[in-house]
Amino acid sequence: MKKLPVTVGVIGSGECSEELSSLAREVGREIARRGGILICGGLGGVMEAACEGAKEEGGLTIGILPGTSREDANPYVDIPIATGLGDARNVIIVRSSDVLIAVGGRWGTLSEIAFALKFGKPVVCLKGWDMLPDVQKALDPVDAVEKAWTLAAKS
Amino acid sequence: MKKLPVTVGVIGSGECSEELSSLAREVGREIARRGGILICGGLGGVMEAACEGAKEEGGLTIGILPGTSREDANPYVDIPIATGLGDARNVIIVRSSDVLIAVGGRWGTLSEIAFALKFGKPVVCLKGWDMLPDVQKALDPVDAVEKAWTLAAKS
Amino acid sequence: MKKLPVTVGVIGSGECSEELSSLAREVGREIARRGGILICGGLGGVMEAACEGAKEEGGLTIGILPGTSREDANPYVDIPIATGLGDARNVIIVRSSDVLIAVGGRWGTLSEIAFALKFGKPVVCLKGWDMLPDVQKALDPVDAVEKAWTLAAKS
Amino acid sequence: MKKLPVTVGVIGSGECSEELSSLAREVGREIARRGGILICGGLGGVMEAACEGAKEEGGLTIGILPGTSREDANPYVDIPIATGLGDARNVIIVRSSDVLIAVGGRWGTLSEIAFALKFGKPVVCLKGWDMLPDVQKALDPVDAVEKAWTLAAKS
Repeated sequence: MKKLPVTVGVIGSGECSEELSSLAREVGREIARRGGILICGGLGGVMEAACEGAKEEGGLTIGILPGTSREDANPYVDIPIATGLGDARNVIIVRSSDVLIAVGGRWGTLSEIAFALKFGKPVVCLKGWDMLPDVQKALDPVDAVEKAWTLAAKS
Repeated sequence: MKKLPVTVGVIGSGECSEELSSLAREVGREIARRGGILICGGLGGVMEAACEGAKEEGGLTIGILPGTSREDANPYVDIPIATGLGDARNVIIVRSSDVLIAVGGRWGTLSEIAFALKFGKPVVCLKGWDMLPDVQKALDPVDAVEKAWTLAAKS
Repeated sequence: MKKLPVTVGVIGSGECSEELSSLAREVGREIARRGGILICGGLGGVMEAACEGAKEEGGLTIGILPGTSREDANPYVDIPIATGLGDARNVIIVRSSDVLIAVGGRWGTLSEIAFALKFGKPVVCLKGWDMLPDVQKALDPVDAVEKAWTLAAKS
Repeated sequence: MKKLPVTVGVIGSGECSEELSSLAREVGREIARRGGILICGGLGGVMEAACEGAKEEGGLTIGILPGTSREDANPYVDIPIATGLGDARNVIIVRSSDVLIAVGGRWGTLSEIAFALKFGKPVVCLKGWDMLPDVQKALDPVDAVEKAWTLAAKS
């Protein structure tokens, strides 16, 4: 079987502060620099910033959209997947990732972290939900991606 | 429009301790005594104990199953719904409840709590995830159901 | 294991002619007279007429809704299940039925017939898609329900 | 908004004859020659043959898998998406395509054709379900892809 590149789910809110946006962009850049594929929910905020960063470094980005139209994707998504499933699409993001990096995030992000841990996938938190048991806390974007790679290699 | 009875999602692990099982059974009894409909994931553990309690008091129970066969339902489910959607069925339990009561629970339960809070539905926690922000902590089964009714009336 | 009543999926368009509506109502009545549970998509047209008929005869009706609110259900649905999954909810109607009766219907109905035949569930067609291979053609509502019962008993 | 390449859903059975396999491979080649993206269910039979053809011509292939593991994808899928949703994933293939080409196919394929027509997406049939109303009948693989491009441009 061919070896797939590491696929990293980047999760976080569809609207976010400048600070989180800047962190997410750097996470996206670092994933692309390492040759990883970035998968996310395809919308704005953290998702858009991460995709933008990945594209700056020539990475590949996938957006798993809640709605029925691929045109809902942010402009940095290469492969938009329209599910029409609403929030149930969160499960698909998790199932299709080797490892997840949460950048801040609220309840939607928590649902994805919970599914990841249920499915035995490692989770790195940069801000946000980093007090949860069984997640890895990251100090900064480079640390987050480094930890994600180490965890993906082990699992 | 006709007024539906209060529908309470009871969430928790498919395998659980005697203590949690006993609490869940009492939660189910109390929901039925108040005329509520109990909805859950339809499997064992907390789900089965809650359904058993509800049936002891003549209540109605619905199980939203992850698999493709209605025969996976525990014997106390009146209305088994087979989804074939795996863990994505958690969203349906939440969407179809007025209020959720979590009895203990691990990651799957956390995903349901997260969806509930995302969708603006109140959550009462009996043990388990009661340290989360925005959930109501219950002291015992009767307190849990009482709080659920109060919150459902407001929302 | 307890024996569940026969669960019949009644499928058809959300808007329909008086003729189809009248046929669907009679299908619903006949299902209820035989003690079956009626499951459907929960909306208008054929779904509403079938539920209305079932309630006239004291039957139980379940509506698996595409949207996020149980209040979208027609007034004759006893148990509304809100999925938020859009048309993907069609799979759940089929998975949760022992046998399906299609009353007229267009593309959505065809998707349900196709899933039913894929899953090995019998399909009875009253008008509409009755030229398809592997479906049973019914002459009238009573014939449709009679055939459904016979097929459900065999499968 | 950036212009996405045409995305073509290629649908058909997971096991198929040499003849259909050969037709599907040529459909995949022709989609790639025109710069289209091929999306499919990611498994064997028609799906695998179409992906193999697309890769021979340097195309990009996406597989929307029913199971929970990306490793279920056939070896010619570039972007495997694991949904864990079973047959409900058919909706996602349709939602994410501009146009669909069915190569032979049985009930699963019919469910996808039905969803496509429900969602207003054009369908080209090469063998199989070409007697259905509202689908375009193709004479051979090149004709199928040509018709798909014409229809996608109009819709």
